[in-house]
This record gives sequence, structure tokens and C-alpha cells, in this order.
Amino acid sequence: MKHLLSLETLSVADFEAIFGRVPTFKQNRGHHARPLSGQTWALIFSKSSTRTRVSFEVGLRELGAEVLFLNANDIQLGRGEPIQDTARVLGRMIHGVVIRTFAQSDVDQFAQFSGIPTVNALTDDEHPCQILTDIYTFQERRRESIGGKVVTYVGDAACNVPASWIFAAARLGFELRLAAPAGYQPADSLLRRAGGTQGPALPGTPTGTTCWYFASGAKVIVTPHLNWAATGADLLYTDVWISMGKESESAERLRQLEGYQINGNLLKRAKSDALVMHCLPAYRGKEIDAETLEAHADTIFSEAENRLHVQKAIVDWMIS
Amino acid sequence: MKHLLSLETLSVADFEAIFGRVPTFKQNRGHHARPLSGQTWALIFSKSSTRTRVSFEVGLRELGAEVLFLNANDIQLGRGEPIQDTARVLGRMIHGVVIRTFAQSDVDQFAQFSGIPTVNALTDDEHPCQILTDIYTFQERRRESIGGKVVTYVGDAACNVPASWIFAAARLGFELRLAAPAGYQPADSLLRRAGGTQGPALPGTPTGTTCWYFASGAKVIVTPHLNWAATGADLLYTDVWISMGKESESAERLRQLEGYQINGNLLKRAKSDALVMHCLPAYRGKEIDAETLEAHADTIFSEAENRLHVQKAIVDWMIS
Amino acid sequence: MKHLLSLETLSVADFEAIFGRVPTFKQNRGHHARPLSGQTWALIFSKSSTRTRVSFEVGLRELGAEVLFLNANDIQLGRGEPIQDTARVLGRMIHGVVIRTFAQSDVDQFAQFSGIPTVNALTDDEHPCQILTDIYTFQERRRESIGGKVVTYVGDAACNVPASWIFAAARLGFELRLAAPAGYQPADSLLRRAGGTQGPALPGTPTGTTCWYFASGAKVIVTPHLNWAATGADLLYTDVWISMGKESESAERLRQLEGYQINGNLLKRAKSDALVMHCLPAYRGKEIDAETLEAHADTIFSEAENRLHVQKAIVDWMIS
Repeated sequence: MKHLLSLETLSVADFEAIFGRVPTFKQNRGHHARPLSGQTWALIFSKSSTRTRVSFEVGLRELGAEVLFLNANDIQLGRGEPIQDTARVLGRMIHGVVIRTFAQSDVDQFAQFSGIPTVNALTDDEHPCQILTDIYTFQERRRESIGGKVVTYVGDAACNVPASWIFAAARLGFELRLAAPAGYQPADSLLRRAGGTQGPALPGTPTGTTCWYFASGAKVIVTPHLNWAATGADLLYTDVWISMGKESESAERLRQLEGYQINGNLLKRAKSDALVMHCLPAYRGKEIDAETLEAHADTIFSEAENRLHVQKAIVDWMIS
Repeated sequence: MKHLLSLETLSVADFEAIFGRVPTFKQNRGHHARPLSGQTWALIFSKSSTRTRVSFEVGLRELGAEVLFLNANDIQLGRGEPIQDTARVLGRMIHGVVIRTFAQSDVDQFAQFSGIPTVNALTDDEHPCQILTDIYTFQERRRESIGGKVVTYVGDAACNVPASWIFAAARLGFELRLAAPAGYQPADSLLRRAGGTQGPALPGTPTGTTCWYFASGAKVIVTPHLNWAATGADLLYTDVWISMGKESESAERLRQLEGYQINGNLLKRAKSDALVMHCLPAYRGKEIDAETLEAHADTIFSEAENRLHVQKAIVDWMIS
Repeated sequence: MKHLLSLETLSVADFEAIFGRVPTFKQNRGHHARPLSGQTWALIFSKSSTRTRVSFEVGLRELGAEVLFLNANDIQLGRGEPIQDTARVLGRMIHGVVIRTFAQSDVDQFAQFSGIPTVNALTDDEHPCQILTDIYTFQERRRESIGGKVVTYVGDAACNVPASWIFAAARLGFELRLAAPAGYQPADSLLRRAGGTQGPALPGTPTGTTCWYFASGAKVIVTPHLNWAATGADLLYTDVWISMGKESESAERLRQLEGYQINGNLLKRAKSDALVMHCLPAYRGKEIDAETLEAHADTIFSEAENRLHVQKAIVDWMIS
């Protein structure tokens, strides 16, 4: 049985097997196969969500499943009852599960004890479905592989979304630049876990920048220098500065991350055909300006829509 | 694409097209057409609800749709993320939406940006599905058109339910009497927006009463004189005095609205075959007495049931 | 029309009719009949729940129904609107209902006014679906009838689960021993209502023990002496000490119920082939120790799974 708990454990063949299934589901929406017919899948969400919930609930149903949505009030995952008990009970009643919660260990344990296919739909550590969708969307719109391209992530690079980007880069062999101030950069341990080796700076790299090298040919470059990081990029990517649960750090985050914004000036430094993406919700005037968001709305809302199609491909790959 | 955002924009032909569909859905429940097969519709509700939620969730499923219920905790409509972003995302994933919220502008904007059929299932301004159901129920039970009849609304006439009654009267040409104390009467601007012109008092009208005239032949009469307003009425109608969100005004409302009650004495002034309706929940001893509620329970609970059938007709009309 | 509001009113033939249906649903999961096709059933839950919610939601769908989940925020059962009104409205829109709430009278009234099949999925007074499942599981695993066997309930015997056990024993003729400290023993009035007559103590019964006799041959023995109660038992059964809503009594309950634990030492006193059951969630080190829970996990999680199969049988019996 396959799970999708992290991008760390996906092989290049796994990425290709997932991406290869997407066009069928996207082009034949409403008419494609329903491999989950007769099954009930549960969504267990400890955090509110629009995109993640709707894309999974619609997608699983279009794959033929019944869907049972359980929020944090309905089931206290990891509190009260140990996960191994909840997992053993649900594993005997339902056929698959999509979990959005805090601790990665909760999702890992659920997969281990339930005996049913388990999807990580967001933890504090990773957001694999989002990054699979982002990469698919890049390749769909550019009609070429992301291998060898330059992806510049702008903002808080110490959280789940950039962590999944690091695992993806390590495997798929692109250059990932993480433009973030000190304190918002990924831990060295994460880069090592992804298979990286810290090496010599690239020519022209500004001070304060570290370079990590991977067997796939990937490079991950961590730098506070936003303008340098955007230069020649194929993709500028950002996420909200203050995600759910971090509202108490709001003032400090605004102060530290100020200036790490995708806007017209930054975009001029990227390649002329660079894409702009955002995993939403977007805060205009913060991590992106309103003008750039609207100018790239077709990419950004296609990226959101592709969650639906890519997640169907993920589930189909898991059960095949 | 059609929406149902307000009764203001419905033509007489639209009312007839909706009403004309109801008997098929009502008489063939369980066996009628399923025009939404393969679609997923979302209910987005910022307020708790029994009748509205159940009638839409059951009705949409019986039309063939999958239904996704999103409450205020699942999706913060109009807070955090701008509606135009939420609407653009959901518009790419789902096929139609039913919204129950506070600001009418939120529903209007959702319709504009989502590109999918949108139903107003209650806002602070209007309650079109309820009043369509009320009028259908009147005509079903009386076996005659509401045109030319006298409808007396008792209670708070400055809120969403009477506003929708005003738009309906303006179009369908009946006499609507709003019996409400000062401070609970509709704004002149609303009556003008509905096409009304203030004119001379009818003969015998008590002082403090204003009369509005409409091209359809409709009259809307606003008066604090309850007994006068009930005299010769074909329908006595009321709504809860303290609706959700107005609990803080509770004592003041009870004081001001006291006496604006449908009861046996009031009913004696109406036509002998007058109907009594209530959009529920009912507070016995407040806007209606227990005896009258139970004596007219068959009408009132048929009115509730008709939400199911009429809303199916609304959706079928929207997508046709 | 049949309801399942309590075990009190079930005949032996009813128990047999329900149990007799289970194997078909269990062995043919995914392929059995769908007698609820075209129907929508509602779950109305005033308390959070994992097992009850998931087992009913999955089970009803596998019987062919659409399911509408309404939690305490969606519908204020018995508060605000009187139950007879809510029941009359829902009874016209949906085809059956499963209610988990506090007052037994709310479930009873809903059944009376709605006119649709109504299941008690837990009240302060009873938990009939759980105990039907427990007895089915005992008989399934032991391949023999529970009649004449000895069931020892350990812990708080003054709540809903032991009450349903008492009604079941009274009808099915087994010996039920309730091992609980003073203050946590069932009321005499309940035992009398179940048809019991207080009689002479059995030979060897320790002081402080009362014995009740029933027409079926059943005995219910209420005692604070746990070790005595476990001796020769065919089934040791327990429930959480502090159930939802009783958190404020937490310290007092822990003090009073301490020692009323199923563990290896207690199990040595039972029959060598005795089963251990728990209706979950389990608190290790409180009402059961971790080692015994894991040693009997196959029984306990089969018991949880059987909720799914037995509840399908209950619903099928109700509508047949």
C-alpha cells in the first residue's frame, strides 16, 4: 500500500507516475474512471481550509468515493484518544484518509496503524500535495520539465511549503533559491536530510549566501538577498507571511519579512517568461502586490484549480 | 447564466417559470429528473440554520448533485481572503453555490467573480427563497393567484423577509400591508427602489399610515395599526421578533413589538378563509399564540416542506 | 413504523431479528442490498463522536442513503425551537434520523412528532446500539448464545451503558454483575423498571451486594466487590470513567473509581476463555491497563468495527 506522507520518499518515477495521470483527469473531468466506487474516504482536518478541503472533497467524490468530513471538533486527533486507537478503528470502517493537522508524526502514525491509504494534506513539516501541484502547473504552462530551471521562493523559508520544495528540488534536479531573512531560513539538518552537501558558493553569490549540492544536480541556495535571488528566475513563488496559528507573532513577522515581496520591480529581474505563483490566500501589499497578483491571476488560479486534478492523480497512484 | 440574488430582478415570467416547475418536483419526489448529476454544489453558511440547510442539502442531492457544506469556520467568506479570490477558486472546482450570510454585497460579488450559478439563501437584505415558497404555498392551498389579494405582514417590517415581500408585491400586483411600529417599518428608499410612488391614503386609512402605488397595480401599505391591517386579509404572515444576531436588542424589541401578534382575535378580522403562515422558528406567546400556530400547523409545516420543492424549481430554472 | 429508542422495549424476537441480519451485511460489505436508496437520513449529534458518527455515516451510505450530518451548532435540538416543531419540519424532508444527545425525552419526542424512523445513538439514559453490538460480538467470537453466561461490568454503573446492559440482561437471560462503588451503582427504580425483583443473596455473595431476579432467568448483581464479581466471568467489560460532559467531576471520579480496573490480575479470576471488551475511547492505566488492552485488541477493535455491521442490521430491521 502506498501513502503520500512526504515528498522526501518519492522517487523520480513516482513524480512521473503522478504527473502522467493528471491530463486524463483534467481533460475528462466528469467522465473519467471512478476507481474509488463503493469506498468511503474521510477528511480529518484540524485546521480550517478552503482550497484543500474543497479540492479533496470534490476530487474524491469525482473518483467515486463517498466522503466524510471530520473537523477538529468531531474527532480530537492525537488528543484524548491515542492515534493508534483512532487509526485502528477508522481503518476498519473507511477505505482511505486525508489528514490536515499540526504534527507530522500524527499523520505518520495514522498511516502505520490504520492500514489504509493516507494522504498528508498539510502538516507543520510539509505540504506535499501543494508542491506537486505547483510543479505540475509550472510544467503544464511552460510545456517543459522543471529540471534545470530556477525557482525562487520569497518569504518565510523555514516552514512546510519550502520544506516540500527542498525535497522536490533534491529529486527533480532544479535550482531552488530561498530568499529569506535570518531566522526564516531552513535548518541545515533539513537540507542534509534531503541529501544535500554544503559546498562552495557559486560565482557572484553575495555574502551571507549558502549553497547546497545534491546528487540529482539540484542546487538549493539560501540567501537573504532577494534581488539577487530573483535574477534570471523561471518561477517566482511566495506564500502568506502569517499562516494559521502564527497570528501571535504577527507584528514581528511583518517587521522581519517586510520587503520580501513579489512585485513589478522584482519581476523585471526574472526571465521575461517567468511565472508567478502563490499557494493562496494572498495578502495584497504584503507578500505580493495587487497589480502583480492580478497580472498573473490566470496562472495563480489555474494553480489553485490544479489541486483538484493533481490530487486525483495522487490518489489514483496510491491505490494502483 | 442565471442567479437568484434578489426578488427585485425577477420578472413576472420568471416567477411563473419557477412556480410552474414545482408540481413536477413535488409530486414525483424520488423519481424526477436529476439535472445536476455529475455536479458538486457548495452550501456556504455563515449562520446556523435548520430549514434552509436541510431543504437545500436534500433538494440538491435529489437533483443529482453532490453537496459540500461549508460553515463559517470552514471558510471565512469576506474576512481574511477577499471574496473575489475565494469566488475565483471555488468557481473552478464546483458547479453552483448556495450562500447564507450577512452582507448582500458578499453574495452579489461571489456571483460576479465565481462564474457559477449562485443562490441567496438569506442575507441581511433579502430572503428570496422563503418568499417564493410562501407565495407558492398560498397559491397551492388557495388554488388561485396571489394577484389582487391582501397579504398582511405582522411584526418587524424593516428586515429581509418583508423586503422580499415588497419586491414580490411590486411585481405580482397584490396588496401588501406591513403592520409594524415606528422604527420597524421599511425605509422609503427601499419602496422607491422597488418602483413605488407614495400616494394618497386609501379611504378609511387610519392616521400614521402611508400608501405606495406600483405599476403592476400593487399597493404597499405601511401602518402601525395592526387591527386595521388584518381586516379582510387573505393571508396573515409573521416572522420571529428577534432573529439571529439581534439577541442584544432583545428587551427593546420585545417592548416595541409587543402586541404585534397573530392570535384568534386578530384572525377574526381577516377573511373567513384566510391562511396563517410563519417562516419558523415560532416563538409561542410572542409573534403568534400557541393555539393559532397549532390550528394552522398544516399550512405552516407545508410551507416549511415547500422550501424543498420550490428550491429545486429555482435551481432547475437557474440552470435551464 | 419501528424506532430504536431503548433496549427496554425490544423482545427476544427483535434481538434475534437484528442479530440474524448482521452476517449478511458483514460478509457482503460493498455488495449487499441498498434498501435506503433514494432516501436521505440525518445524523443529529449534540456531542462529538468518532465511532458513532463514522459507523453510522458509512453504514447508512452503504445501505444506499444520502447522509446529512447536523451538529449542535447547526441545529439546536430542544433549545430555541421546541422539538415538536423541528421534528415536524424534518419529518417532511428526510426519511430517517439518528440522534446523539443528552435527554432521552428529546429522542422520544422526535420519534413521536417526526413520523420517521428514529435511532437513539446515545443519550444520558441509554446506548442501545453499543450494547447490541457488544452482545453480537460476544456471540460471534464465542460461537454461542449469551444466555446463561456471566458478564461483569467494571466501573461507573450508574450511566447509560450499564442501563442498556440491564435491559439486555433482563430480556436475554444472562447474569450481569455490576462492580461499582457506592454512588456509582444503578438506581433501584431502573432495575424495577427493567422487570427485576430484589431477592435473596446468592450463596457466597459478599456483604454489600444486592441481587435482582428477572422472569427470563436473568440475574443482575450489584456489588462493590470487584474481585468477587470477576470470578468465573465470561466477559469483562468496562467504559471510560469520565465520559464527555463529566470533566468537572474528574478528580472525585478518579478517587472513587480507582481500582475498578481490568488488568492481568483481575483477568486471572475470570474464565480461561473470557473475553475483554471496551466501548472506547480507552484510557490506559485508568479503567484498563495497557497490556490487557493490547492483548485483547483484536476483540476490542472487532467490537468497534461491528458497530458498522450491527447498525446496518438495526436500520434494516427498523424499515422492514
